[in-house]
Amino acid sequence: MSRSSHAAASTRPLGSGPGGFRPRPGVVVFGGGHGMSVNLRALQHLTDRLTAIVTVADDGGSSGRLRGEFDILPPGDLRMALAALCDDDPVGRTWADVLQARFTGDGPLGGHAIGNLLIAGLWQQLGDPVAGLDMVASLLGARGRVLPMASVPLQIEADVIGLDPAAPDETSTLRGQATVATTDGEVTAVRLLPADPPARPECLEAVRAADWAVLGPGSWFTSVIPHLLVPELAETLAASDCRRILTLNLSPDGETRGMSLSRHVELLADHAPRLRLDVVLADERAAADDPHLESYVASLGARLVLADVAMRDGSARHDTLRLASAYAEVMGL
Amino acid sequence: MSRSSHAAASTRPLGSGPGGFRPRPGVVVFGGGHGMSVNLRALQHLTDRLTAIVTVADDGGSSGRLRGEFDILPPGDLRMALAALCDDDPVGRTWADVLQARFTGDGPLGGHAIGNLLIAGLWQQLGDPVAGLDMVASLLGARGRVLPMASVPLQIEADVIGLDPAAPDETSTLRGQATVATTDGEVTAVRLLPADPPARPECLEAVRAADWAVLGPGSWFTSVIPHLLVPELAETLAASDCRRILTLNLSPDGETRGMSLSRHVELLADHAPRLRLDVVLADERAAADDPHLESYVASLGARLVLADVAMRDGSARHDTLRLASAYAEVMGL
Repeated sequence: MSRSSHAAASTRPLGSGPGGFRPRPGVVVFGGGHGMSVNLRALQHLTDRLTAIVTVADDGGSSGRLRGEFDILPPGDLRMALAALCDDDPVGRTWADVLQARFTGDGPLGGHAIGNLLIAGLWQQLGDPVAGLDMVASLLGARGRVLPMASVPLQIEADVIGLDPAAPDETSTLRGQATVATTDGEVTAVRLLPADPPARPECLEAVRAADWAVLGPGSWFTSVIPHLLVPELAETLAASDCRRILTLNLSPDGETRGMSLSRHVELLADHAPRLRLDVVLADERAAADDPHLESYVASLGARLVLADVAMRDGSARHDTLRLASAYAEVMGL
Repeated sequence: MSRSSHAAASTRPLGSGPGGFRPRPGVVVFGGGHGMSVNLRALQHLTDRLTAIVTVADDGGSSGRLRGEFDILPPGDLRMALAALCDDDPVGRTWADVLQARFTGDGPLGGHAIGNLLIAGLWQQLGDPVAGLDMVASLLGARGRVLPMASVPLQIEADVIGLDPAAPDETSTLRGQATVATTDGEVTAVRLLPADPPARPECLEAVRAADWAVLGPGSWFTSVIPHLLVPELAETLAASDCRRILTLNLSPDGETRGMSLSRHVELLADHAPRLRLDVVLADERAAADDPHLESYVASLGARLVLADVAMRDGSARHDTLRLASAYAEVMGL
């Protein structure tokens, strides 16, 4: 079992090795929600060649209301990714805070993220989702690009067992990301509707040009696996020369509560049989609970890297700098 | 009667006299809506020291809905002024177009100007209307500053005659800008509610520092006169060393349909007895219908300047460059 030897508080400038200048790697990050944000905050310490490829299946909250009103891509996860990439100067930070904030009250605007409304407005006016996202990226001084994983809004459909105590092995079908993400049952498989959505060419180009692709952490069924169900995207990722890192969650909760880390990897592999992983990155304490993880990862042809990537306060969240340091180690930066 | 001798298509660089460099004047523009926009588009040819002081009494449309939901200043006229000041590069122009556009459909967002939502969001998050407007100005590369004429949302109340055919001289009281602006009766006087709203200190500073103040054109009772009913603003304007230009409408329609240009000036003077005007600027064709205008303007101690400031196509709208040229003449630029 390899052990990441980084010092979390290293003062070595990230991205420059002892041998002097090295070109910064092109990194594509697949995900959504908070998992995507923590990855982007970590990776921007290592490179400015960052592309976030974001889920577009959310149907809850502000995004769900906007889908209902305008039949557009759900902007929420895209907005969060943009905010995570924002420049750290006061103007960029202020804009990011404004776009992340939500209108108060319970009127027609109450609960809408301000940035969701701006993105929806840009899309209506410009007619092109990527052009609108690039405008917001420019406003924020974003250090990277944010793209939707498909050109059309998606729905997630899941097979779930355990919903009926009288028939615990019976499989039910649930539809809608918000419903799947909060089910009391055990999700065994997810699908996209439509099943063969078009990918954005900008995503395919970014994957082809990438040195590294990062999947996870995040809500396993609704933020991590869905990208691999977009056929063009999965095929392009499988065919790319990039190396692929799967970053595991710190604590199996939410959609995968009670599941081992091995089971997380297995579920991903089940949904993307052609995907080859190079590295599986796990928190060393989280991995201590799973004696099968190393051998299972090895059986897939990947290398398990353990590192202390959790917050110092013991909460089950990734620490940005510790995660950055682990990625730097993995990427040889 | 003085006659403006400008050539509308003059190729002399505006703002630079034959004697070489002259400092650009500080100009404060009072108004709202389309009248404010045409003034700002014209005056930005002459100076970058522009301050727009904008009405905050609108209670119709998108602004009215936002007032109803959040009890904020109505953002619509402020947004229009910002868009008029936007930088003419492609990015500034694209942002201005987006902020001016409205959401389609008749759902909860339908009809809202996108910029109104962004301004409302900035206000909620920053807690200060001027800070929010300055952020939008920066986004647009605005060539000037846009300020609200009062710190609190206002209502307009009007005395109106002629609403009841059976009692044509009876005075009714109407409340609300949208109601006043569209009444079939004849407005004889307007008031603000509250009657003594606080002005923004930034407005008072701009008026004190101005070389020129411009009032009109615009909806007379709801965009031009209201500024003079904010006591602090009217007093500061009366006490300022700046020279004051009143620009008359091309065609008396809307709130003042059927009224002569002289009557427009009289109504303004009735509402602001301490205001001294230096110049009244009128379109020469519009003024031809009013034989009393010159003597009435002279009786107020002001100078009437006539110029061809209408669109070439004969429509009753000001031509930006012709208006700029007339202002340059009046200001000796």
